[in-house]
Amino acid sequence: MYKTNYLKQFVQQVFEKIGCSRENADTISEILLRAEERGISSHGMIRVKDYYQMYKAGRINTKPEIKIKRETPSTAVVDGGGGFGMVAAKQSMEIAIEKAEKAGSGWVSTRNSNHFGIAGYYAMMALEKDMIGVAMTNANSLVAPTFSKSRMLGTNPIAVAVPAGKFPPYVADFATTPIARGKLAIKGKKGERMEDGFVQDKQGNPSDDPDIIKEGGAILPLGGDRLHGSHKGYCLNSIVDIFSAVFSGANFGPFVPPQVPYLPLPEEQVGTGLGHFFGAMRIDGFQEKDEFKRRMDQWMETFKSSESAEGKPSVLIPGEPEREAEQKSASEGIHLLEPIQKDLKEVADELDIPFEIK
Amino acid sequence: MYKTNYLKQFVQQVFEKIGCSRENADTISEILLRAEERGISSHGMIRVKDYYQMYKAGRINTKPEIKIKRETPSTAVVDGGGGFGMVAAKQSMEIAIEKAEKAGSGWVSTRNSNHFGIAGYYAMMALEKDMIGVAMTNANSLVAPTFSKSRMLGTNPIAVAVPAGKFPPYVADFATTPIARGKLAIKGKKGERMEDGFVQDKQGNPSDDPDIIKEGGAILPLGGDRLHGSHKGYCLNSIVDIFSAVFSGANFGPFVPPQVPYLPLPEEQVGTGLGHFFGAMRIDGFQEKDEFKRRMDQWMETFKSSESAEGKPSVLIPGEPEREAEQKSASEGIHLLEPIQKDLKEVADELDIPFEIK
Repeated sequence: MYKTNYLKQFVQQVFEKIGCSRENADTISEILLRAEERGISSHGMIRVKDYYQMYKAGRINTKPEIKIKRETPSTAVVDGGGGFGMVAAKQSMEIAIEKAEKAGSGWVSTRNSNHFGIAGYYAMMALEKDMIGVAMTNANSLVAPTFSKSRMLGTNPIAVAVPAGKFPPYVADFATTPIARGKLAIKGKKGERMEDGFVQDKQGNPSDDPDIIKEGGAILPLGGDRLHGSHKGYCLNSIVDIFSAVFSGANFGPFVPPQVPYLPLPEEQVGTGLGHFFGAMRIDGFQEKDEFKRRMDQWMETFKSSESAEGKPSVLIPGEPEREAEQKSASEGIHLLEPIQKDLKEVADELDIPFEIK
Repeated sequence: MYKTNYLKQFVQQVFEKIGCSRENADTISEILLRAEERGISSHGMIRVKDYYQMYKAGRINTKPEIKIKRETPSTAVVDGGGGFGMVAAKQSMEIAIEKAEKAGSGWVSTRNSNHFGIAGYYAMMALEKDMIGVAMTNANSLVAPTFSKSRMLGTNPIAVAVPAGKFPPYVADFATTPIARGKLAIKGKKGERMEDGFVQDKQGNPSDDPDIIKEGGAILPLGGDRLHGSHKGYCLNSIVDIFSAVFSGANFGPFVPPQVPYLPLPEEQVGTGLGHFFGAMRIDGFQEKDEFKRRMDQWMETFKSSESAEGKPSVLIPGEPEREAEQKSASEGIHLLEPIQKDLKEVADELDIPFEIK
């Protein structure tokens, strides 16, 4: 088990060493560790080596200038300067929040960015300001639209955070696919097969092979097949792509640059980098603050009191599992799998920074 | 086959006769007929009798005052005055558009409303103004959250419309469930069974009975079961509920008033009527208008050129099937099933308005 602060300081050193400002290295380490704390390890320390290698491949600008390129009182387009996604994303969400302070709401579409970690982090930034937060991002293409045999869209997550009163906030943060890429990889390593409704082969036929992505296959949209509403998952997924990239001038759909160094950039580019979309709305734009929170508490009480089906766990409010994970990691620390520890040690050695294998 | 105008005039007469202003009767008939034209007959003429009976049961105010109750430059809460949902919804979307004209975007949460027909209609109102449109609504509870055995949420649809240049606009309009209530009823009448992933019985066990709703069962969220990501469908569905009803002061979750006269109002009310949420964003808040449309065209070209899997139809852009239906009904007219014709005749006779059975 690692202490959060130990890992945070390590990540900070890595990113400072490769040229990031102290403040930006701080942002990156804070967001990667927040993912670990919330039990979303697929977006945590495992990314350090990927990010480092993206930098080594010359695909990341460690000294980006983040600029507002266009704006109205409640909307803006931000250019992320080709830096690490967290840096552009945090500043973009800050701009959305500033706009909301004056105009009631703020909406920012960001281009020329990269992988930004957990969408929930940015949505949750709004909570401290008594605002509702929204964050989404496109990602490199792994998902086939309904009827298509090609990978045209990413797993394009959406996060929405809503403040409550006596209860913890509502925080939904989910990919718009039935399964995440990382979970498929784990199934593959275990030699397990997939049930229907998750992946297809390169011809577009249903597949039970968790490694089918490596052979030109694709993940299905949320819903699985057409019968079960995959066209709705495709709608949702493509809305994220359009808001993040068509609005901002980033690459969309199959043109989104992969965020791992061993996958080449697509030959054609239709914009710069990948794209995100952020929103903030003041709760007192809708109700008196106390009344808003009272109503949100009442919503949560209603859903928590919903009776579970036999043999099922209790009904959850979005955000509960991640909050439980946070409590656990606060008391127990953060566990890293051996291969991840080794990867981090490798990065540490290259950069001449200490890192302790546990 | 009926001519659209014949039905439009009929609907107008019905709603004027029960006390609606000419303008409001116009709005209602326009939106019901737009649903028919777009091939979404579940939200078209079949609703006339339901709406009429809701009025007769004293559950609709035919002379509502629609009022802004709270606002910022880019947000507002609107009270729909307990009238027909279309009237409050159209005015709310107009307010969102006015706000967007000045502030770049406008977001309106509406309470004290009723069934508003197709969400896509309001999202599409933004298109003429070169804006992106968003519309959603909650609905009476038929859907069980993941793990729950109770109906806690409606089929809560979301619509998003985005203008393009040489191509028709992108229009996504979908319920956040794998199947709509109306389609279940048709399956039931045909004596068919359901595949996995659509409904559960009153104990929360998987069911293949399309009529299980009548026996206390529930529709599952998009995704179906937990394994296939129903918790994501539950997130999406609950976001619609919160934005529409917690924000506005409408009834949420299980408290939403049913929109058919034979189902009683819930004993407890936590707000007024049902709720909607609308958004409008100026495309030139993000890009020069021509550039925005060029990028959206490019997005559509990219997705239309995606190769279909063997034996599958071509990959669709959201909105294409409804547009094809519009072209068909423009040339062929509108077909109404016999039982619907009879229902309309019944309403016509009661109100002493002519209606021709075909």
